[in-house]
Amino acid sequence: MIKVGIVGGTGYTGVELLRLLACHPHVAVDVITSRSEAGTYVSELYPNLRGHYDDLAFSEPDAEQLASCDAVFFATPHGVAHALAGELLERGTRVIDLSADFRLRDSDEWSHWYGEPHGAPELLDQAVYGLPEVNRERIRQARLVAVPGCYPTAVQLGLLPLLEAGLIDADRIIADCKSGVTGAGRGAKVPSLLAEASESMKAYGASGHRHLPEIRQGLADAAGRPVGLTFVPHLTPMIRGIHATLYGRLTTEPDDLQALFERRFANEPFVDVMPPGSHPETRSVKGANLCRLAIHRPGDGDTVVVLSVIDNLVKGASGQAVHNLNLMLGLDELAGLDAPAIMP
Amino acid sequence: MIKVGIVGGTGYTGVELLRLLACHPHVAVDVITSRSEAGTYVSELYPNLRGHYDDLAFSEPDAEQLASCDAVFFATPHGVAHALAGELLERGTRVIDLSADFRLRDSDEWSHWYGEPHGAPELLDQAVYGLPEVNRERIRQARLVAVPGCYPTAVQLGLLPLLEAGLIDADRIIADCKSGVTGAGRGAKVPSLLAEASESMKAYGASGHRHLPEIRQGLADAAGRPVGLTFVPHLTPMIRGIHATLYGRLTTEPDDLQALFERRFANEPFVDVMPPGSHPETRSVKGANLCRLAIHRPGDGDTVVVLSVIDNLVKGASGQAVHNLNLMLGLDELAGLDAPAIMP
Amino acid sequence: MIKVGIVGGTGYTGVELLRLLACHPHVAVDVITSRSEAGTYVSELYPNLRGHYDDLAFSEPDAEQLASCDAVFFATPHGVAHALAGELLERGTRVIDLSADFRLRDSDEWSHWYGEPHGAPELLDQAVYGLPEVNRERIRQARLVAVPGCYPTAVQLGLLPLLEAGLIDADRIIADCKSGVTGAGRGAKVPSLLAEASESMKAYGASGHRHLPEIRQGLADAAGRPVGLTFVPHLTPMIRGIHATLYGRLTTEPDDLQALFERRFANEPFVDVMPPGSHPETRSVKGANLCRLAIHRPGDGDTVVVLSVIDNLVKGASGQAVHNLNLMLGLDELAGLDAPAIMP
Amino acid sequence: MIKVGIVGGTGYTGVELLRLLACHPHVAVDVITSRSEAGTYVSELYPNLRGHYDDLAFSEPDAEQLASCDAVFFATPHGVAHALAGELLERGTRVIDLSADFRLRDSDEWSHWYGEPHGAPELLDQAVYGLPEVNRERIRQARLVAVPGCYPTAVQLGLLPLLEAGLIDADRIIADCKSGVTGAGRGAKVPSLLAEASESMKAYGASGHRHLPEIRQGLADAAGRPVGLTFVPHLTPMIRGIHATLYGRLTTEPDDLQALFERRFANEPFVDVMPPGSHPETRSVKGANLCRLAIHRPGDGDTVVVLSVIDNLVKGASGQAVHNLNLMLGLDELAGLDAPAIMP
Repeated sequence: MIKVGIVGGTGYTGVELLRLLACHPHVAVDVITSRSEAGTYVSELYPNLRGHYDDLAFSEPDAEQLASCDAVFFATPHGVAHALAGELLERGTRVIDLSADFRLRDSDEWSHWYGEPHGAPELLDQAVYGLPEVNRERIRQARLVAVPGCYPTAVQLGLLPLLEAGLIDADRIIADCKSGVTGAGRGAKVPSLLAEASESMKAYGASGHRHLPEIRQGLADAAGRPVGLTFVPHLTPMIRGIHATLYGRLTTEPDDLQALFERRFANEPFVDVMPPGSHPETRSVKGANLCRLAIHRPGDGDTVVVLSVIDNLVKGASGQAVHNLNLMLGLDELAGLDAPAIMP
Repeated sequence: MIKVGIVGGTGYTGVELLRLLACHPHVAVDVITSRSEAGTYVSELYPNLRGHYDDLAFSEPDAEQLASCDAVFFATPHGVAHALAGELLERGTRVIDLSADFRLRDSDEWSHWYGEPHGAPELLDQAVYGLPEVNRERIRQARLVAVPGCYPTAVQLGLLPLLEAGLIDADRIIADCKSGVTGAGRGAKVPSLLAEASESMKAYGASGHRHLPEIRQGLADAAGRPVGLTFVPHLTPMIRGIHATLYGRLTTEPDDLQALFERRFANEPFVDVMPPGSHPETRSVKGANLCRLAIHRPGDGDTVVVLSVIDNLVKGASGQAVHNLNLMLGLDELAGLDAPAIMP
Repeated sequence: MIKVGIVGGTGYTGVELLRLLACHPHVAVDVITSRSEAGTYVSELYPNLRGHYDDLAFSEPDAEQLASCDAVFFATPHGVAHALAGELLERGTRVIDLSADFRLRDSDEWSHWYGEPHGAPELLDQAVYGLPEVNRERIRQARLVAVPGCYPTAVQLGLLPLLEAGLIDADRIIADCKSGVTGAGRGAKVPSLLAEASESMKAYGASGHRHLPEIRQGLADAAGRPVGLTFVPHLTPMIRGIHATLYGRLTTEPDDLQALFERRFANEPFVDVMPPGSHPETRSVKGANLCRLAIHRPGDGDTVVVLSVIDNLVKGASGQAVHNLNLMLGLDELAGLDAPAIMP
Repeated sequence: MIKVGIVGGTGYTGVELLRLLACHPHVAVDVITSRSEAGTYVSELYPNLRGHYDDLAFSEPDAEQLASCDAVFFATPHGVAHALAGELLERGTRVIDLSADFRLRDSDEWSHWYGEPHGAPELLDQAVYGLPEVNRERIRQARLVAVPGCYPTAVQLGLLPLLEAGLIDADRIIADCKSGVTGAGRGAKVPSLLAEASESMKAYGASGHRHLPEIRQGLADAAGRPVGLTFVPHLTPMIRGIHATLYGRLTTEPDDLQALFERRFANEPFVDVMPPGSHPETRSVKGANLCRLAIHRPGDGDTVVVLSVIDNLVKGASGQAVHNLNLMLGLDELAGLDAPAIMP
């Protein structure tokens, strides 16, 4: 069995990693760290895991122990992987970082959005952006992978075919995104209370959100030029799920948008291009490592609308992290990721 | 007391009319009709009304009885008001139609979207579109008012100031709208079940929705020219509420968008322009006849984003209908409509 | 206008008081205090109140200013009314306490459940338990009213007729209660997050809850003897509402339970005995100061089941507080409390 | 691979069977029938299954084809298995019936509750009640299994240890049960709409519910005598989950209730007795074939309270059906049933 560690496992991406890895045929979780919950059994904090991991308790982070793993996931706030990744990499341990620490190639831009100096700019060269649908081969060789954010995953997968083919105006892209509340994490904040967030909907960060530069970077890579993006995230009264509604202006008459998308993702096990006319529901991917897409062209005009749904905790975080692990270790890509979504 | 009737009162807009009118100081509901529930007391169908309207039962529609009212609301599927409005108007009864029957001025366009001939084209001349923020004076004189749809209300109020001032590209407007499930009515349909619609989100009608021509008509009036609009509605897991996120491209450098909106709605009792940087929540208008707006300009670029929230059953339907009644009858505009939203 | 003050107005019972009082014809809120939010306008914290109370801001508690009010509500954690009520009463201001400070007549029992000495035992003599259906006349004369808790209100109203008539075994009563999450307050706690509390249900405090002695005290008064009560509260994924399911064993064959309940509450404006066979829904009282009851006797056996629903923030807190205010000041009991529940 | 068929696969228990069997290492679904959806691919109706079962479409029921399977599940309304089971059994196919057709041993009682004659009384002798924690050995030998209902599973597992040990008054048991809305099936009914069932709670069937005789039969078996049971189910605003709160009066001083339960279920892979003081959440079993239990004795009195949670679609239906299949076919009991619950 492959030994893995998880740093900072008390949040939602941590417990989701544990849930997914419980079904992984080749991986065993050897260590999971948490300063705040050191000594607590994971099944105390997450009773859904009772019967699995019964001997696994959170421990204080210990570099020695983590370095003994084949790979270590960081399910931490930004900054933590900056501090620890270097040592692990030196000792030969692969690092899969679910935080934002290594997603931006430009450390200055990182500093701008996170309000502090980048903690490990020397590692940026070897960091691979872990979107397998773009970087599969590089991920296979990588020692350090930055798992994409949830919004960036949903938005990029929905726009890549259009930008790679140069079909839409790259200066004027709109991504209207709706997320369930687990996107805000497990922190105890008043706006995330059921009494506050249920039976309501609101936008947030309409004037600027930390996922914006990550999305722009990815879209620019696809377009081969900088892009202009308006990105408005919304908080939606559901636990899991992201629905990205993407708007682009066609600058050339395309042959067949549906076929374009189907070709682009033909060999992708975790992207599902739905039939023409579809409206994917977020629940159709709940718990599964999938992005489902549908393409519309209202009134046969020059606006193309792409609907893209993921489970923010799976394809938007922990599932994609496991996919990266599988690639890095030469395992079957679907290992641990082949269960259907749960519905209803 | 002013006597009013309600045709087709078993749906959500019907019960919401009853709830609002229970607090109206000058209005008494004299008759409420329903073919399917004739003989049932309203408080049997809607136990929230027990203690109010205890003697009021649904009855078979009777033109005589309806004509004895000062005003009659139609809370019916499309087509019903076409059949009955003419007779009521002839007998001197005011008609306030919450359905789509008289919203479009062009009967051909109506036929196109509803798939049948317009049933009362001869009445279109006297029908007034009941958006008080645009047509207040005409409503005061009207005998037949078409209450705007829920999406059209939220979208128009958010875009009117920009279009009237000629600030945005009228050819390329995007309205990304999210609605609670009462927008789909009280019909027993599988997709509206809690087990289907909860914990999920999806777009629908991305390639064309019946509210599109109504919105285009209103926006064109404001712009003084035809507009190009992409309108994508989404189903959101909440009971009430619409959140419209509106995107326009500035074609000229505006002075002060916030001030523009504040001026435009300075005397409007039911439109609230929130402070700069706000993100209105739909729950902040739950149960209240209000539209709250916020204006954003991300990154000081040329895209303006307007956030517009209403309660689809109140400002998007029954509350706006009562507002029209107040105007038509020369009552205080706020009569029956002055209670705060319920929150949490 | 009657001048009232609110101490500790940032929680859910505070904002609900403001919502209800905004529609009260005879009351004006003169002062609202909060140490943590001093200086903040109430409409900033609660945007549903924009357009109402526009000049009202939270202020530091000031005894002078509070004493200038005709009545002061305490919407505070326990202990605060202990400290301030005495001074206000001395200066002639009526006190309506929504906290638990004066609900138990026995200060030792209070200390036992709250883990600290009772802070104002000298006031207990004049404190009246504010359940109007039991103590209406005493409330009219009272200067200090302890508004009942939410669970105690729902449970007592459902059991009073049976205990007063001596029909059930008072040693073995079961109250299985389900509450929405606002019952847990507006504190930022992980278990109250939407991501934790939604799509789930659980009991809590099964081995003992602070509302138990209050309920026992009220039931014992009704029975004229001590009672044995098993009380299990549950957290339910909804914002508002309490559903109490009450089980008693009939010790004598009753004449007509339905008639008994109807007689007992015949003149009560805020208790609704539903027709035989009914199953009241919590939403039928959402936002309204009502308790709806239904009585069942499954299989005509000797177990009686009473279903009792309230809105925990209205009949279970702020609405009942306003009812008490109306009684204390000789106003119409329904003043400010006559709007129907909001449904759906 | 073992070939199975599913009769009536369009409901929630049908899709849940498909979800679980997709992860079963030894089973392939060969045929799934539906009269209303014949010709539709399962992944059209249930997009969560896209990528699984891509060639599987609903077909008209065909006895020949069904009889070619090793086992056939009935996920049908009552009456269907009555009509078809006999022929399948004769041809040597095992039958696992998720409906109520073979749960009651007494065909008269069945007729009483279902209002029609029992359709296959001659098969009752060979029908085994499929609660593995009671009938494991008989299930291993069975050709026809009646999978227990959801409420009956949660209630029986919570009470069996107490009744088998003769510790509680069997004449006076109370089961207060709360269910998510999938318990009401996928039928399009107004009360199950999100707009009706969300943000609310209600009891139903307080005077009698079809699961009552099934529960009584099972409890009587455990007690070795008839039992008196009051059973009140409630509808709760969540998709999945049952929470049973069970009340019994101790008639003898027990040694150690916690130890009693732990011993009783020590070898049961799908029953989890939680530590003393626990309050199991329904979400802790979401998607998993588990019943979690906690035992309380409030105030050390003579009332014992058992909290029992299951996922109504898994341990309360399809998961338990797969467990029965595993037993009948001599497979590992955990095959297809070992994934953790999904949380949050």
